[in-house]
Amino acid sequence: MKDLLGLKDVSGQEIRRILDEAFRLKKEVLEGSKKDSCLSGKSVITLFYENSTRTRLSFELASKYLGATAANIAASGSSVAKGETLIDTAKTIDRMAADIVIIRHSASGAPHLISRYTKAAVVNAGDGMHEHPTQALLDLMTMQEKKGRIEGLRVAIVGDVKHSRVARSNIYGLHKMGAEVVLAGPSTLMPADLEAMGVKTYCDVDRAVYGADVVMGLRIQLERQKKGLFPTVREYHKFFGIDERRLKLAAPDAIVMHPGPVNRGVELSADVIDGPQSVICDQVTNGVCIRMAVLKMLAER
Amino acid sequence: MKDLLGLKDVSGQEIRRILDEAFRLKKEVLEGSKKDSCLSGKSVITLFYENSTRTRLSFELASKYLGATAANIAASGSSVAKGETLIDTAKTIDRMAADIVIIRHSASGAPHLISRYTKAAVVNAGDGMHEHPTQALLDLMTMQEKKGRIEGLRVAIVGDVKHSRVARSNIYGLHKMGAEVVLAGPSTLMPADLEAMGVKTYCDVDRAVYGADVVMGLRIQLERQKKGLFPTVREYHKFFGIDERRLKLAAPDAIVMHPGPVNRGVELSADVIDGPQSVICDQVTNGVCIRMAVLKMLAER
Amino acid sequence: MKDLLGLKDVSGQEIRRILDEAFRLKKEVLEGSKKDSCLSGKSVITLFYENSTRTRLSFELASKYLGATAANIAASGSSVAKGETLIDTAKTIDRMAADIVIIRHSASGAPHLISRYTKAAVVNAGDGMHEHPTQALLDLMTMQEKKGRIEGLRVAIVGDVKHSRVARSNIYGLHKMGAEVVLAGPSTLMPADLEAMGVKTYCDVDRAVYGADVVMGLRIQLERQKKGLFPTVREYHKFFGIDERRLKLAAPDAIVMHPGPVNRGVELSADVIDGPQSVICDQVTNGVCIRMAVLKMLAER
Repeated sequence: MKDLLGLKDVSGQEIRRILDEAFRLKKEVLEGSKKDSCLSGKSVITLFYENSTRTRLSFELASKYLGATAANIAASGSSVAKGETLIDTAKTIDRMAADIVIIRHSASGAPHLISRYTKAAVVNAGDGMHEHPTQALLDLMTMQEKKGRIEGLRVAIVGDVKHSRVARSNIYGLHKMGAEVVLAGPSTLMPADLEAMGVKTYCDVDRAVYGADVVMGLRIQLERQKKGLFPTVREYHKFFGIDERRLKLAAPDAIVMHPGPVNRGVELSADVIDGPQSVICDQVTNGVCIRMAVLKMLAER
Repeated sequence: MKDLLGLKDVSGQEIRRILDEAFRLKKEVLEGSKKDSCLSGKSVITLFYENSTRTRLSFELASKYLGATAANIAASGSSVAKGETLIDTAKTIDRMAADIVIIRHSASGAPHLISRYTKAAVVNAGDGMHEHPTQALLDLMTMQEKKGRIEGLRVAIVGDVKHSRVARSNIYGLHKMGAEVVLAGPSTLMPADLEAMGVKTYCDVDRAVYGADVVMGLRIQLERQKKGLFPTVREYHKFFGIDERRLKLAAPDAIVMHPGPVNRGVELSADVIDGPQSVICDQVTNGVCIRMAVLKMLAER
Repeated sequence: MKDLLGLKDVSGQEIRRILDEAFRLKKEVLEGSKKDSCLSGKSVITLFYENSTRTRLSFELASKYLGATAANIAASGSSVAKGETLIDTAKTIDRMAADIVIIRHSASGAPHLISRYTKAAVVNAGDGMHEHPTQALLDLMTMQEKKGRIEGLRVAIVGDVKHSRVARSNIYGLHKMGAEVVLAGPSTLMPADLEAMGVKTYCDVDRAVYGADVVMGLRIQLERQKKGLFPTVREYHKFFGIDERRLKLAAPDAIVMHPGPVNRGVELSADVIDGPQSVICDQVTNGVCIRMAVLKMLAER
């Protein structure tokens, strides 16, 4: 594996290997010394064309916990963006001897383009509406941790599926690991290409959640509301939000997930977020572990 | 001590212990190798909702000089602030295995709220008009260093006392260490609750400065002028600024302090800032030392 | 050498010593372990009043590859700039025990001013229209690497020479190393003081490029176009841009350089940028090496 651009082309066996490494690093580094030197002498550069404090911080800490040299480029609003093509930026970073480049970009495929112009390993930290593989991997890790398995789980993903790279990467990953995926959300926000991916879609959230082992809310981009893609926030919550009543339709020991940050009272009600079935905080911890595992495996290739 | 949220609830004995540690670190680390490993394997995250390059840099260098993993979140204008409550941000940072969180926020009490939702030690780097404990500690350290004692000193604090967390933390700390505090400033900028704290207040700066061992100017927030809380900058300097004439009213060996950055010719005249009685530059150095001491003691708890 | 403020006052012998060190570090650190400890216990602070992701990153990586403690101050828009003079900022950084300060500022002479108020070594990373010494040094290193020598080379610098600190530093450095410099660009962008520096200037780019061993394009500040200093971008490229036809006028083995980021199709045509004579990517790598060498030599003084 030279890069991690998406889960579409990663095998189930490779996913399993990443999860195993992440569980090991969780125990030995994150809950242990937080000082490992397996990335000593390696440089990791984060290049974020879209703001995401949370994901960037997760990658930065993962890099530093493993002893790497880490540097951030906040490309939005910086001089990187001005008058320089993405390819020229890739070449520049390559020539500064970066070993791993982590890129977030609003254009689908940007990480793939970067990859062609650098010897560094490239990690896709979210590209447009395409993929966000480390998010899906941390979701898989959390399911494995909380449910003891991934195979055979019924996973309901609820919300703006159409625009969600989180949903897309999860569908690839879950299918490879033998889980069943069902989707629900406003009909205007349902992707047209999912039939081909073998996913059942519902407009009625109750039916999707029914019997699910995992209920995953997706972050609503509130700016899409202005474009008329969904009604008011209040109506959204009523029709598509996960509250206690809806959660009762799922399996009794179902877990609730969300990539964060949550809009409280929109995708999830406050009592669900803070309730005993919520594993949102575990997702954050596992995010650092997954990123450590991915960085380590890319550095060793 | 789990956190350092303010000096109100810190005992004189604890303050003394922090100062002793800071003096030791000054000699052994800052003036020595600048490479200590007592925070190796610990992660320190600065979360600044208000800009403050100077204070943030001081904490960042203190962390790094002691070998910690340091990461900054500039929350103003970042995605942290958007759609995520302070509590959710606290939980997220907690779950990324931060050991120490340093927070600056415009709302009084924000660090206390954060503290309830994280296992990490929390350091208040300034919360609204409430407290700024490391600033007061570095002021105490500088007085101890320059005057050989804190007990029995007469300290005149001059300026916008009402809105000043620096003044408030200093009053707590100075009283615990046995110093006398007098305040002076525009009557519109005098706090109503200070009588109860046993502090003498004057509108006439000359009377406050008279016989003082320490004269401390406070930074004027120039944007308050627009609100009519004080007259023009020129008038402010005339009535409340510290110049050579006023400084002569203080004890002959009095020292002049300011938390910085100074508005030259407003709170202090240029000749006072650059004069032999000014210890403003020492405050900066001691700021790094105090922060090293606080981080070390919180990490060891 | 306490500081590196410009190449005007650096001898040819010193330049040679920096180049030698840079070549050694390139081999042993950048292409080797990327983990050296010669700056361990030293702190390097970058203070950029002008945005420059590329140059800042180059200095940051150079610092970290050598084991230094690195901290960035993005002064543009930060509180450093507000109400604090440059001198007070210098004193503050000095008192936080910085060993090396790297400054970029829109005012010529700012690094010199900073230098007078700090014990730290100061590196000029670009000051107004004055100097940018590490850029010129990396250009010299690249010429040495690609042409085997600097002495006797004919170097054509093309573009907005008048406002270019890159051109100015290169002229000083190239003359000291025995190269010949010719300039070309719009007559409105030609400096008046260059006759005294012994440089031939042309308005006809073809004549400047003719027989050159090195053709260096300068970055056009597109905002100057609005001020009428040059015509449209398209016209600029026609009259002053380097394309394949023009490059054929140079020596057959001439190399093409640019400080980057390039405005594609303006200063250089796309086929020249990506062609076999372009050494722009090598300049980026050598930039990290030169900065490592400069930091190491300043730290050892």
